[in-house]
Amino acid sequence: MTQRPNTPVLDTPVFNKLALIGIGLIGSSIARVTRARNLAGHIAISSRRAETLQRAEELQLGDSYSQEVADAVKDADCVIVCVPVGASEETAKAIAPHLKPGAIVSDVGSVKRSVIDQMQPHLPSNVHFIPAHPVAGTEKSGPDAGFETLFDNRWCILTPLPGTDADALDRLSRFWTACGANMETMEPDHHDLVLAITSHLPHLIAYNIVGTANDLETVTESEVMKYSAGGFRDFTRLAASDPTMWRDVCLHNKDALLEMLARFSEDLSALQRAIRWSKGDELFDLFTHTRGIRSAIIDAGQEVDLPDFGRQAGLNSGQQKSDSGKASE
Amino acid sequence: MTQRPNTPVLDTPVFNKLALIGIGLIGSSIARVTRARNLAGHIAISSRRAETLQRAEELQLGDSYSQEVADAVKDADCVIVCVPVGASEETAKAIAPHLKPGAIVSDVGSVKRSVIDQMQPHLPSNVHFIPAHPVAGTEKSGPDAGFETLFDNRWCILTPLPGTDADALDRLSRFWTACGANMETMEPDHHDLVLAITSHLPHLIAYNIVGTANDLETVTESEVMKYSAGGFRDFTRLAASDPTMWRDVCLHNKDALLEMLARFSEDLSALQRAIRWSKGDELFDLFTHTRGIRSAIIDAGQEVDLPDFGRQAGLNSGQQKSDSGKASE
Repeated sequence: MTQRPNTPVLDTPVFNKLALIGIGLIGSSIARVTRARNLAGHIAISSRRAETLQRAEELQLGDSYSQEVADAVKDADCVIVCVPVGASEETAKAIAPHLKPGAIVSDVGSVKRSVIDQMQPHLPSNVHFIPAHPVAGTEKSGPDAGFETLFDNRWCILTPLPGTDADALDRLSRFWTACGANMETMEPDHHDLVLAITSHLPHLIAYNIVGTANDLETVTESEVMKYSAGGFRDFTRLAASDPTMWRDVCLHNKDALLEMLARFSEDLSALQRAIRWSKGDELFDLFTHTRGIRSAIIDAGQEVDLPDFGRQAGLNSGQQKSDSGKASE
Repeated sequence: MTQRPNTPVLDTPVFNKLALIGIGLIGSSIARVTRARNLAGHIAISSRRAETLQRAEELQLGDSYSQEVADAVKDADCVIVCVPVGASEETAKAIAPHLKPGAIVSDVGSVKRSVIDQMQPHLPSNVHFIPAHPVAGTEKSGPDAGFETLFDNRWCILTPLPGTDADALDRLSRFWTACGANMETMEPDHHDLVLAITSHLPHLIAYNIVGTANDLETVTESEVMKYSAGGFRDFTRLAASDPTMWRDVCLHNKDALLEMLARFSEDLSALQRAIRWSKGDELFDLFTHTRGIRSAIIDAGQEVDLPDFGRQAGLNSGQQKSDSGKASE
């Protein structure tokens, strides 16, 4: 795995005009890295919500701002749709009549088959539709949450359709590479299966355990919070992610997610049985087996090589921030 | 919740001689904070394994080192047992004949009822047995993994037995407070229930999902690693924890853990059904409901107030470290 420093500023932008439809965590991170590294001559931003658009303008994320997608996509040589996957079809319908012939149309959705099925029928044949998924994010959402280095050393998966124009594909790859990403190409269905286990199931499990803890009668919410450093707090990060985005992912990657859920539940039942019958060796074997994958992920540059996510340092500085910000109780 | 800076160095140690039986992550963290803040006049370290003991000596964690617990506990006014909970009984048997009358005997186990049942029958009536559990840790283990600030602003739960000497209780509380911990007292059975949801179930779930991912035929291990930034990597931290410790926790907190597992599975089945029948509103409600708990945990000083656990900064510095340490591929 190549590890590299932040990609440098380009001499010549990849696109003359880049249109971002949706300006949340991912859209605003694209805007920031595009600006910082000179990846587009003009950044046009569109959002359905007036206050989001206004905030994007206050943050100076783009060069033009409009609630009308028509204004944003007009003359754009690349349009990246950055909306929850459930809004893909209506977005495709809205932008279709205004697209420049030869434009690249892409997205950032966590699900690819459904996005293709929603968008492709509505897009004109004279544009290059190339579905994409940068596997990066945080639990924060909205235009304030983005940052320039979000895609550095993360993977961006393209799921091009048969017959996709090689030049368009190359151009979009160059764009994402300049954003800092490593590129991979995959079949849409395989993408959806891979992401079901590496991203969708983890989120679902995290939402579920936090929900379970919330609903207990025997343990108070205050106790859950106080003793969350025992492990629980790790799950609250994923469970704090954007509800709309994750509802849509669950609904639009149903089959793969249900398959992974079934596997997970089957394994959990076996584990439950091992505990009930005090099968210490079985537990020990599983708990040893799972240890190696983390070091492999660290070696692959996808995780920090620090105990506790490097949280200790952050916790101390975070606390000092809190201390100065409010009185101790 | 009181947030305070690191506790200062004491003028007078709390204990003349502190004996640590076991010198892993927790034991070695106690040794380090004890030394740094002058909490004991002498730190005696005992470990069954010769190489662990030698490593503790190389790290200069204590003042004396012995594989024989007798040497370590002799004349100690406080003995803290820092071994996997399954080794509590044999440790109690081994130390019992050598304990100084009036000594405090405590532990750090994640389970309290079983530790009490294992240790109490073997301890002489002229010592003060006070079970304790500092709710702190990382996924690392061994004497190298400990650090001075591990207990800062974490909670230490005491589960004293009826009739416990008030002075002894006060002295142990002063010790843990000087280690940086916030103190709480609880019934042993309630402790085991609270920790089942805040710590034991999260570890079990993490081990399980990492095991599920490992066993898939349709997604390769390399794919799991590459795209783990989508959420999966969060679980690999808990799943990299010490297998012996967690096997013992599962076996010794069986009832509470099976109860929490049943609740979790019930909730997961409901979620699975909501996905199968495309009940978007149900999903959205749960995903919204779980969002608040993280900010509450941050407000309670038990989590960093930074996106992605503050990982971004650590990842960048970690990568630079890796870059200098090995050639890019």
